[in-house]
Amino acid sequence: MHKLYIVGIGPGNYEQMTIRAAEILKTCDVIVGYTVYIDLIREHFGEKEFLTTPMRQEVKRCEMAFETAMEGKTVAMICSGDAGVYGMSGLLYEMGARYPEVALEVIPGVTAATAGAAVLGAPLMHDFCLISLSDLLTPWEKIERRLRAAAEADFVICLYNPSSKKRKDYLRRACEILLEYQSPDIVCGTVVNIGRAGEQKKVLSLEALKEEQVDMFTTVFIGNSQTMSLEEMMVTPRGYRNV
Amino acid sequence: MHKLYIVGIGPGNYEQMTIRAAEILKTCDVIVGYTVYIDLIREHFGEKEFLTTPMRQEVKRCEMAFETAMEGKTVAMICSGDAGVYGMSGLLYEMGARYPEVALEVIPGVTAATAGAAVLGAPLMHDFCLISLSDLLTPWEKIERRLRAAAEADFVICLYNPSSKKRKDYLRRACEILLEYQSPDIVCGTVVNIGRAGEQKKVLSLEALKEEQVDMFTTVFIGNSQTMSLEEMMVTPRGYRNV
Repeated sequence: MHKLYIVGIGPGNYEQMTIRAAEILKTCDVIVGYTVYIDLIREHFGEKEFLTTPMRQEVKRCEMAFETAMEGKTVAMICSGDAGVYGMSGLLYEMGARYPEVALEVIPGVTAATAGAAVLGAPLMHDFCLISLSDLLTPWEKIERRLRAAAEADFVICLYNPSSKKRKDYLRRACEILLEYQSPDIVCGTVVNIGRAGEQKKVLSLEALKEEQVDMFTTVFIGNSQTMSLEEMMVTPRGYRNV
Repeated sequence: MHKLYIVGIGPGNYEQMTIRAAEILKTCDVIVGYTVYIDLIREHFGEKEFLTTPMRQEVKRCEMAFETAMEGKTVAMICSGDAGVYGMSGLLYEMGARYPEVALEVIPGVTAATAGAAVLGAPLMHDFCLISLSDLLTPWEKIERRLRAAAEADFVICLYNPSSKKRKDYLRRACEILLEYQSPDIVCGTVVNIGRAGEQKKVLSLEALKEEQVDMFTTVFIGNSQTMSLEEMMVTPRGYRNV
């Protein structure tokens, strides 16, 4: 049986990778991935074959990984964060039927929601939703329906892909929807370049978030009705104090 | 300034800890935690001071951590999974105002949602919610409202704390609520003892999940309307194939 690992490398810096992920990247023959992620980790795994494809070439990247595995090489496909959260593990399992001789194994990693939460303090301490604002693969109506449901039930919300060149006003549109249900004072946070050079956090109100310019390297957090701003940190209480 | 790290150790085995978490546990003076988690990692960090408290002693455990840090020792409070997901980071930030000389830093880890997802294949590939079924700290009405909102908006759902001795029928109650909105054939999965001895997964329908006996070491996944069962794995498509 040939082996193809799907490895979440965490938010970006080597130290936030798991020990198991680093071991697999050290011992595999070939590392496949999106160019930007390969560049983030290349220096730590020196002498090795790297195969890269640009963004939006996901199917081609997966075929490349399967075909390289079929040659008898141990292959690791890398994804930023966790490979199972808006990553490549779903597509690889879907395509896997065409390559029955290749065994897949997912190595989990730290996703941007929890890595970003750590920078902000403790925003995700209670029930939360992850929603991607990218409508490349999901109709906007479905995204909007999920935003409404999440706000109505007072979930903490973590937004992935809050913006891109073509979707500059999506975060504003999302905030306007949330403001139909939630107070403008709800505590929110943003983290840009989590675990990488230039990491920066901000704690602000939902009203202010609506006016915020964010880029595709930003993860956005919207608190629930109990979330507090404590010394510039974003903290959602869970209730232990009352126990 | 004294230092208190809040460290997510991942689902349990040493290899699923991040490199940064392991470094901090190696270099700190004292490790504080719930007895079960200390026992999971103790062998890897030999000569060190360990302070443990049993479950439900969360406030006491935090006070112990702050007071030890005030003595000038570098302290790491450990949590399973990620410290910011139903962990201790929120309470520590809330109590932090009483200890202004202690600087807090959260070290993120792999939470049960993504670690369990890796075992099942790729269930979390699209927008998802994390909901804890424990009503120790949250009224059941709020939990129920969140289950309804998540099912209505077709989120993938990951349930933490699906059962305990006192809450044997909570998973059944949750499934009954979800069945008001979703098909009984929706693909679900369970993983018990993620990353530990005795790890086991199961892929089953929502109807079957309702009858399932689970324990407090189980993480439960409920697919969205598109989630598939592929060769005993649970896979939620994201749509790359149509790009």
